[in-house]
This record gives sequence, C-alpha cells and structure tokens, in this order.
Amino acid sequence: MAKDKAKKPRRPRAETPKGFRDYFGAEVSARNAMLATIAEVYHRYGFDPLETAAVETLEALGKYLPDVDRPHAGVFAWQEEDDGDWLALRYDLTAPLARVAAQHRQELPTPYRRYAMGPVWRNEKPGPGRFRQFYQCDADTVGAPSVAADAEICAMLAETLEAVGIPRGDYIVRVNNRKVLNGVMEVAGILDPADQDRFEHERGIVLRAIDKLDRLGEDGVRALLGAGRKDESGDFTEGAQLSDGQAEIVMGFMAAGRETGAATCARLRELVQGAETGETGVQELETIAALLDAQGFGPDRIVIDPSVVRGLGYYTGPVFEAELTFEITDEKGRPRQFGSVAGGGRYDDLVKRFTGQAVPATGVSVGVDRLLAALHARGRGGAEAHGPVVVTVMDRDRMADYQAMAAELRGAGIRAEVYLGNPKNFGNQMKYADRRAAPVAVIQGEDERARGVVQVKDLVLGARIAEDATLEEWKARPAQYEVARGDLVAEVRRILAGGTG
Amino acid sequence: MAKDKAKKPRRPRAETPKGFRDYFGAEVSARNAMLATIAEVYHRYGFDPLETAAVETLEALGKYLPDVDRPHAGVFAWQEEDDGDWLALRYDLTAPLARVAAQHRQELPTPYRRYAMGPVWRNEKPGPGRFRQFYQCDADTVGAPSVAADAEICAMLAETLEAVGIPRGDYIVRVNNRKVLNGVMEVAGILDPADQDRFEHERGIVLRAIDKLDRLGEDGVRALLGAGRKDESGDFTEGAQLSDGQAEIVMGFMAAGRETGAATCARLRELVQGAETGETGVQELETIAALLDAQGFGPDRIVIDPSVVRGLGYYTGPVFEAELTFEITDEKGRPRQFGSVAGGGRYDDLVKRFTGQAVPATGVSVGVDRLLAALHARGRGGAEAHGPVVVTVMDRDRMADYQAMAAELRGAGIRAEVYLGNPKNFGNQMKYADRRAAPVAVIQGEDERARGVVQVKDLVLGARIAEDATLEEWKARPAQYEVARGDLVAEVRRILAGGTG
Repeated sequence: MAKDKAKKPRRPRAETPKGFRDYFGAEVSARNAMLATIAEVYHRYGFDPLETAAVETLEALGKYLPDVDRPHAGVFAWQEEDDGDWLALRYDLTAPLARVAAQHRQELPTPYRRYAMGPVWRNEKPGPGRFRQFYQCDADTVGAPSVAADAEICAMLAETLEAVGIPRGDYIVRVNNRKVLNGVMEVAGILDPADQDRFEHERGIVLRAIDKLDRLGEDGVRALLGAGRKDESGDFTEGAQLSDGQAEIVMGFMAAGRETGAATCARLRELVQGAETGETGVQELETIAALLDAQGFGPDRIVIDPSVVRGLGYYTGPVFEAELTFEITDEKGRPRQFGSVAGGGRYDDLVKRFTGQAVPATGVSVGVDRLLAALHARGRGGAEAHGPVVVTVMDRDRMADYQAMAAELRGAGIRAEVYLGNPKNFGNQMKYADRRAAPVAVIQGEDERARGVVQVKDLVLGARIAEDATLEEWKARPAQYEVARGDLVAEVRRILAGGTG
Repeated sequence: MAKDKAKKPRRPRAETPKGFRDYFGAEVSARNAMLATIAEVYHRYGFDPLETAAVETLEALGKYLPDVDRPHAGVFAWQEEDDGDWLALRYDLTAPLARVAAQHRQELPTPYRRYAMGPVWRNEKPGPGRFRQFYQCDADTVGAPSVAADAEICAMLAETLEAVGIPRGDYIVRVNNRKVLNGVMEVAGILDPADQDRFEHERGIVLRAIDKLDRLGEDGVRALLGAGRKDESGDFTEGAQLSDGQAEIVMGFMAAGRETGAATCARLRELVQGAETGETGVQELETIAALLDAQGFGPDRIVIDPSVVRGLGYYTGPVFEAELTFEITDEKGRPRQFGSVAGGGRYDDLVKRFTGQAVPATGVSVGVDRLLAALHARGRGGAEAHGPVVVTVMDRDRMADYQAMAAELRGAGIRAEVYLGNPKNFGNQMKYADRRAAPVAVIQGEDERARGVVQVKDLVLGARIAEDATLEEWKARPAQYEVARGDLVAEVRRILAGGTG
C-alpha cells in the first residue's frame, strides 16, 4: 500500500463506510420475507402502501430525532448546488409521512391509513450491532382522533409479531399515555397546565430519564430526576432538578402497574386526581383496554404499563412498545432480555408544523433488523435453502449443451446454472458447487455424451455420507450415478423432493 | 405565507425536494410485484441476492457516471464530521458490487453471481419524467471470463422481460462488442493498439456520439465525430476531430447490421480486418450468437446490432441493450418508440481498481421504473385492486362491536377496517368508503343490532347501477340489504367472489 502510494495514485479502499454493512443471500431473503409478511398484515387491516424518497428537505424533517442528549446524533445532510437548499436522508418514516399528509391533503382520504417500509439513516456513532442504516416498517392512521385508532394499532402490532414467528408468550405490548404522565407532572408541580411550554426542558429530561429505567435502574432514574448523574466513564448528564418530593411522585407513577389493566387505571386515577389532562389520559387508557379486551387481546399480549414513555418528544397521547420477553445471551455471555422491537404512539402535532392545523395521528414502527436478530437468536432465522443445481463443464466447446441442460431444469422450475468460471480444473467446479450449497451437480463428459447419459451427483446425500451414513446406505444409494440424458429433469426433481433420503 | 414570515418562524414547506416524488398505493404494489417477478427469474438462474447500503465512500464509487458530458451530472455527496471522509449515495448498483467483490473476495464463491434491487440516486437536473431517485434491478456474474456468461445474461434478460409482461415481439435485445468498435477505430487510425490510453478522450467522444444515433440521427453523429455540434439551444458540444475518412469508417461500423447474425458478423469481420482486438470481438459475437441460437433465442428476440455501444466508459467487451419496440405517444402527442429499458455489458476492470488484479465481470441492469411506465402506457399497469371493506360507525359507544366485525372479516382473509374518522357525519363515512374504493360497506345501527342483523352495501354493484344497470337488475339485486349478523363474513365473501355480478 505504502509502495503504491509513492508510485501512483493510491487505489481506493474496498470498504463499506463506517457503520454500514452488506447483506448477503439468505440475510436478504429473510428480511424481504419478513417485510412481505408484515405488509400482508398491515394491508389486511386496510393500510395502503406509500413509498417516499430517501431524501427530504432538512426543514421538512425537522428536529425530531430521539437521541437529543447525545451530541453527534443527527442526519446525513448536504447542500444543493444551485439554490443552497439543505437536503437530508430521512431518519425515520414518520417525518416523511407528516410531510406527505400535508402536501397531498386535498387528494388523500381522511383518515389516511398508510404503511411504509424501507431503510432509514442516522448519522450516529456506530457501535457493535448498531448501524447507521436500518430498516423500519411503519403503519399510521392520520386524521383519526379516536383512541380506537391507537387500540387497533396495538392489536395489529401483536398480530404482526405472531405473523413473523414470535409466539404468544414471547412478547408483550406495553401501553401507556403521555397525558397521564403530564397529569402526574402537573400534580407534582413540574408542569404548568396554563403554560404548556414553560417546563418543556424539564419535561424532556424527565421523559428521557423514565425511558432509561430498564438500563439505569431506579437509582439512576432518581439521579436524573434530581441533580444529575455521572456514568461509569465519568460523563455527567444534567438532571431535571426536581425536589425529592417531586421525584417521588414521578417514581410512584412508574411503579403504578398492577395485576390487571383495571387496577392499574384505578391507581393512575388516584395519582392524577385534580389534573384534567391526566384524568382524560386515564379515561383513554380505560377505553383502549376495554376495546382490546373485547377483541380478545388479554394481558398475556397487551398490558397497561406506566413505565413506558418512549423517548421521542413529539408524542401527545397513548404510547406503546413491543418487547420480546425471552432471554438471550449478550456479547459478554450474560443473559438478558432481548428488549424492544417496535414502538409508537399518538402524535397530534407533526402535520400541524406544515399546515398550522392540528391533525390527530397515531402509528407504530417495527424495527425489522432487530426483529430478524431476535428470530436468529432463537434459532428461527430461516434455514438457508439449497443453492442452485450446478451443471459442470467437462468440454468447453459443448457450452451450448450444458446451457440446454440448465435451461431444461429452469423450465421445470428448478434453480440451475452452468459453471461459468474457468472450467480447466474440475476440482474447482466441485468446490464451487459446495460453496453454493448446490444440492446436485450434473456432469457430462465425452464418454457420457456418446452413450446418451449424464452423471448426477447428489451433494446432499454425499455430504451426509461423508458425515455419518452407513456403508449399507452408501451401497444402496450411491451419491453419484448415471441416468439417461432424457431423464435428467425427472431425476433431479426426485432428488430435490428427498427421494434419496 | 408572507404574513407568517413577518410574525414568527416560517412554517416548513410540505414539499418533496426537486426531482423526487412520492409513490402511492397501487404504484408501490406494482413496483414490488415487478421486483419480485424479476428476482424470481434471476434467482432461478442461480443468482443470489445482495443488499448493500445506499451510502458508499466517494472513492469507492469512482467516476463512472454515464453522463460525463453534462456539467452538473454527479452524485449526492457530503463529508463526515469526524474524519473528513467523503460519503455519497450510490448512483448505480454496479459500483457497490465491484467494491463488495473486492472487499469480500476471500469468502465469496468464484464466480460470484449476485442480483440486487433498489433505488439509486443521481444528482442531475430533474426534468419531466426524469427523477433523481429511481429503481434498478441488476444481475451480474463476477469472475467469469467466458462470453457464455454474457450470452446467459442476454437470454435471462429476454426471459425477464417476458416474465414481467412484455410479450415476444414487443421487445428486442441488441448485442454488440466494444472490442469490435475498438478494432474499427484501430483500422481508422483513431486508436493506437500499442498505447490504449493515448486516444482515450477521442474514444469517449466517439462512444457517446454513436450512443446518440437514435436521438441525433446520422448527421448529428457525423458532426460529433468531426468538428462538433451546435444543438437547437445554441450549445456547442466538442467533436472528436476525426477526418472525414475516419468518420466514414465509424459510420460504416454502425451501419454494419445485416439480416442475420452470421451476415452481420461477416461484415464486421471485413471492417476490422488486421486489427487483432477487433477480430477477437467478432469471434466473441459469433460465439454468443451460436449459444443463443442453440437455446432458441432467435433474431425475433436477440440480435447482433453494431449501432449499440452504451455510453458508459467502463465496458470492455460485449454490450447489450433491451429496447421496447412498440410505439407510444410522447408528451407532445407524437408517436415514438418507447426505447431502452435495460442494458449492460462486460466490465473487466472495475474490481481491478481496488485490488490491482483484473476480474472479468458481466451484468445487466433493468430500469424498473421505465419498465413500469412502459407497461402502464400499454394499459397493462395492473388494475387497481379493491380497497378494504369498511365497517361504518353508527354508534361510537359500540366501537368494540364494529372492531369485532372487522376482525372476523380479517380472520377470513378479507381486507377490512373500521372507519376511524369522526363518525358524526354518515355521509363522510360513505365518501371515505368511496375514496378507498371499498367493495363493501357494513352498517349496523341500534335497530339492526336489536334485531341481530347488519346492513351490507355492495359498492361495486352500487356503482354499476348508478352507471348503467337496468331497473330489473336493481330490483333483482338491490345494492344494500340486510343479512343476519352471523352471516356477515359469508355474505361479504360472496360479494367479493362476484356473486352479485
């Protein structure tokens, strides 16, 4: 490399940019299959597909990134050459939806129900398993004031998780309401109901503190509600400066969960007594719980949980989060719960940014890549299918004959290809077939051609024999044998159907 | 707007950035269906999926954009904050493949056969129907020196077009070979076989000139081969400064097409006589033609055509292009051929940029959005499917009952939703059902509930009656009627199956 540099322009590095990665073969297929499954559920619920471009104007995106407390959080942005406008890659699918709902409001039905799936980009510091491009799969109802819309999204979320292969009992959807939290903060004197913006800063800190209960524990949250918290690396995070009494009320809110939704709501009603917003919030939670109950979504699938607040600032009512409840082993070998794979809530003000008119909206975002990782961790990653049948090349002048074999196989719906590397070394051809996980190799040299036959090599059986088959099995079903050229397709089909097993 | 500006921070504009657009409902579904169909063909041919990130380092992308003669052609790029690296959105799927083939060369099989689909971005001046983000769907074989790999790609391209709904006769795949063109240029004294780089600039101008034959006609190309060309707007494009004799030889090359592939190759052989590269090129074309012939891809589907050169600089051997041959009406009402929807060729040096070692590669890129536009122009755009069944809300306290109806319908695989807008105005609910193209509306007021029935409104029949049904039809099958609550699913299913037609 250094030598090159001295002599001529350096070669470009063959590297993905930091925080980006490539997905190969079965990884791509598994994701596409999951996206298709989720789309099917969303579609059955009446949502229509929408695909916006990856690029938005920076002003349309706004400043709604969740990690506002990390300095380098942000978007990938650049300036247009001609008019100086700033453009950026979308960081989620909600901001583009708000823009679409405003831009096309004359033509879209009300409510507008859309689903969207695709990559989003975050200009964050990458870390292990943390990438700067990842997939989201969202469904939102724009223009629906009723909490029936929120309840429906929760039900659909549960159904979606089961559809992609998370069995009942391995997940839980937790529901809360920002209005209840606001009510609690009013009671504690942290919010001023007459001036919503007054304690916006403190409210943000409280929200993000509660959102970290899982990670920091009660003491950590209590520190963030008060003077602030120093983490293990010595970094200090500013606290909300609540008094001990105020912090106690907030902590009590998080611990308000009871055995049943009704009992939790009753407890919350006590906590927000006298605060109008809070009482409305409890009422909404009761309605959601009743609707879900009537549809058979009991507390084994969806629960009211006051500790869920979601970090995003823009939620205005119900918020929800789907968590996988089984344990996995983390990178350090410790068991831990897998955690959140989806979340969402009601955001009544995002469209208003553009139009000035409040438009009630609610939706959910499924983190497809995290969900795939979860399924993988549970050994349900979708077994790698066979590769193609490989037709080997014994005589390079007879390429047309080999192509004809592959074409016949494909015509019968069988995945097949002719080996297109340098055919000189036959060992390389078999190595290739192995690397591609080919189930069958087809071989026809001059001798076989003259006799009107082909050699068929059953590579699945061959691999099994190499591992553990008995001599009898081997004798009864040799892994390589001759068939008439005219029987090629039938024989390959028989092998693929497991006929030699 | 101006008033707002004076008073408070201006509201963000709800607009897609210039040159970008949103895709709704059936447009998204049609594209996804086309991508799935193409993927199925590619997969059957033995190609494996690969998904790279949208973002690459600028140095990995290189300068391979086709439109090098337009000043503002380029990529969307920005600089990383921490290390100053330049990142950019990919402008095609070939450059990322070359990077992957170099980066992962130890783990990938040789040859590496991959397909990829997704958006690419061009920082170009947008125009009517010309967007800065569009879809490509590529298949490439990396590490295959034999032109059998090129022939296979051409055959697969023909099969792909038929699979997505372009019938035989409505398309043609044209094949040529850059080596033949190089041979012709050697004969004309435009290229120096001993110093390939010497006339690189002139060669580029000749390439792009030939590529514009369709658009500029013979005179336009002749001008570009000579002193240069002034277009209608007065802009001058520099020419290759060939002598009249040299230009004549190049024009003769473009006109070398004959009735059969064999006759065309014979004519090309005359033209390149004495130029080694050119003779190899003709030999390769003959091999490709023979292979395709043996597989039944006759000149009704794939032809040798010397006028095809492809604008891209990086091709080193066979090049091919798929054109739709039917006429459409352009924006000005004039009939014209639809033109190119896919193209590709052999590029043996792209991986070498990274590794220093030549890696023979060939592939094709299908312009999915253009193909969709073509099908649309032919009225095969995929009829808009029905929207969801809409369960209306007569009594907002009975939301759970309405949700149960929708859930039952979904459980039977029927797309359904409860109206979630403000239910006060029933007319709005029916307007909504109409806008969603709902096939059926379900209605249950207090009276119906008490009697254990629901009203079912057949909106498809209703629309037909409004248009042209006879009074007898209307009487025989009224568009709205009662059924027992327990028969709801069966009745809706009957309507969707066309039972009222």
